[in-house]
Amino acid sequence: MSRAASHDVPHAFADAFGLLRPHFAALDICLRKQLTSFEPEIREMADYCIDTSGKRIRPALVFFSGWRDSAAVAPGLVQASAVVEMVHLATLVHDDIMDGAEVRRGRKTAARVYSPAAAVLLGDAIFAHALNLAARFPTTEVCLAVSESTRRVCAGETVQTLRRGSTDVSEADYRRIIDLKTAELFRVSCFLGSRLGGFEPGYVEAASLFGRHLGIAYQIYDDLVDFFGDEKRIGKTLGTDLLSGKLTLPLFALLERLPESERPALKDEIRGGQKPQLALRLRQMEELGVFSAVVKAVDAELALAVAALAPWPKLPPTPLLLGLTEVLRAQIAGLRR
Amino acid sequence: MSRAASHDVPHAFADAFGLLRPHFAALDICLRKQLTSFEPEIREMADYCIDTSGKRIRPALVFFSGWRDSAAVAPGLVQASAVVEMVHLATLVHDDIMDGAEVRRGRKTAARVYSPAAAVLLGDAIFAHALNLAARFPTTEVCLAVSESTRRVCAGETVQTLRRGSTDVSEADYRRIIDLKTAELFRVSCFLGSRLGGFEPGYVEAASLFGRHLGIAYQIYDDLVDFFGDEKRIGKTLGTDLLSGKLTLPLFALLERLPESERPALKDEIRGGQKPQLALRLRQMEELGVFSAVVKAVDAELALAVAALAPWPKLPPTPLLLGLTEVLRAQIAGLRR
Repeated sequence: MSRAASHDVPHAFADAFGLLRPHFAALDICLRKQLTSFEPEIREMADYCIDTSGKRIRPALVFFSGWRDSAAVAPGLVQASAVVEMVHLATLVHDDIMDGAEVRRGRKTAARVYSPAAAVLLGDAIFAHALNLAARFPTTEVCLAVSESTRRVCAGETVQTLRRGSTDVSEADYRRIIDLKTAELFRVSCFLGSRLGGFEPGYVEAASLFGRHLGIAYQIYDDLVDFFGDEKRIGKTLGTDLLSGKLTLPLFALLERLPESERPALKDEIRGGQKPQLALRLRQMEELGVFSAVVKAVDAELALAVAALAPWPKLPPTPLLLGLTEVLRAQIAGLRR
Repeated sequence: MSRAASHDVPHAFADAFGLLRPHFAALDICLRKQLTSFEPEIREMADYCIDTSGKRIRPALVFFSGWRDSAAVAPGLVQASAVVEMVHLATLVHDDIMDGAEVRRGRKTAARVYSPAAAVLLGDAIFAHALNLAARFPTTEVCLAVSESTRRVCAGETVQTLRRGSTDVSEADYRRIIDLKTAELFRVSCFLGSRLGGFEPGYVEAASLFGRHLGIAYQIYDDLVDFFGDEKRIGKTLGTDLLSGKLTLPLFALLERLPESERPALKDEIRGGQKPQLALRLRQMEELGVFSAVVKAVDAELALAVAALAPWPKLPPTPLLLGLTEVLRAQIAGLRR
């Protein structure tokens, strides 16, 4: 196992998270320890799924939101971050089945290694264990919050799956989907961190709202990367959302900017009626200012995230959380236009 | 919604559960109420999955194990039975994907209606909500027990899925799989019922052990039905386990009884190397006493279940739980040989 791998963590994030080195090390130990709870027959497979060397944005949100003292790594925050990371990893295992993905972060997906059927059940087992770890807190609060979030994440993914290849989706639908599938887990990460960190209810609410808007911003950024990213750096081919019929904000922005007569052809590409003209669509996106329109949408969400914390400039988590918005801004600045 | 449907409940079970009419009515209301917690976009789909008109053996175990007074329907038992039933229904939704099943209990499966991808996510959402309901008890105990059981059920299903079409499976492997995939949820149903019913720790342990052995017996019976059932009554074709390469106890018993020279052909049928000769295998099973051998295995488990409760003949749940073993015996007696 090599979970420490930072080579695939975008540089700016890695810098921001340098502060969290001891926390991530404790998270590693915690995740590894969870494997001993899995039945021996599926332990190795669960290990394969859990060992993803991901960016760990959600654990970072838990740790930063509960920040009290840089020297101490609070065990409760480690446990909560393991819970949200396992929920996230389980959703990735199931996502990769839907997407027919063969590779994630340079490794074969669980569906590819163990069969899609086994991957469904492995994802289930990881979900179940995440909730089991959540139930090991003294009260039911963590389990209540995480199980509700998990249901919302799955609801968002369900809607996204059913709308795939459909152009009968509004930008409001898209925003609702990313609010559920991505922002929800960002939100609950901040909720758990600030709550376990012992902050006052008003701050817990503010941190949760911050997490939600950061999550929306992050997903819009991620959808932007799918068209404007650096293939080598993100480790996947561009335009997969268009190819798989997923209507994301860059596509909404392009549709809006194309002359009305040219829209049916793009819609037909989204519906899979004809092969997407990816090079043309990328060129049109650049020519018609799609990039800056989408960046504007990200900025608007980041502004809401920042505003949520404005009344509490002096609490220890605030500068750290605000730092994450800067990290995202820097990531966007690094994208080609 | 018509969850009261008893037409597909085997007669003897229906009789035994007549006592539970008000409890099942309360369970219906509770399950229906849960739907309001689901996100509007997936509520109708969740309803479709939850509305299965099943046999409700697990809820019956919860109610009987917690039995104090026939007149009162304890809300805690209703809630716990809704939790285990939802976990069970979620596993069915995912099972039907693995099996490529088109129909369950006379209705199209969720995978068939909404696509397998959507069914994966819907099952996830139902799992998550079951754990959310479990987290609404005053302490973490229910959530702890149910999440651990769920992980074990998924572990059992994973192993079964990976071993499908393999003859490199021992009878011990088979018993381990059914202990996890079926007996575990029976066990936790009895655990929750007796615990929430306020019985002493020794009885909670005994009831849990009873549930486990009843679960093993029930699964062996179910595997027997796949070869010796009445097609009309069970609503599916016989021999599906052989056709899908699932090595169950009747097949172990047949393999053991066949002359050594004839075993490779049957093994090849299990591995899918050649089309299963179902009529021949059924005839051989009858001729070689497979039926009675498997019934003996069921009886052995039922004896262990009964023995677990022997020290507590006077506690109210005991006669009711023992009644369930009689129901299973009557079911078996009703099978053709």
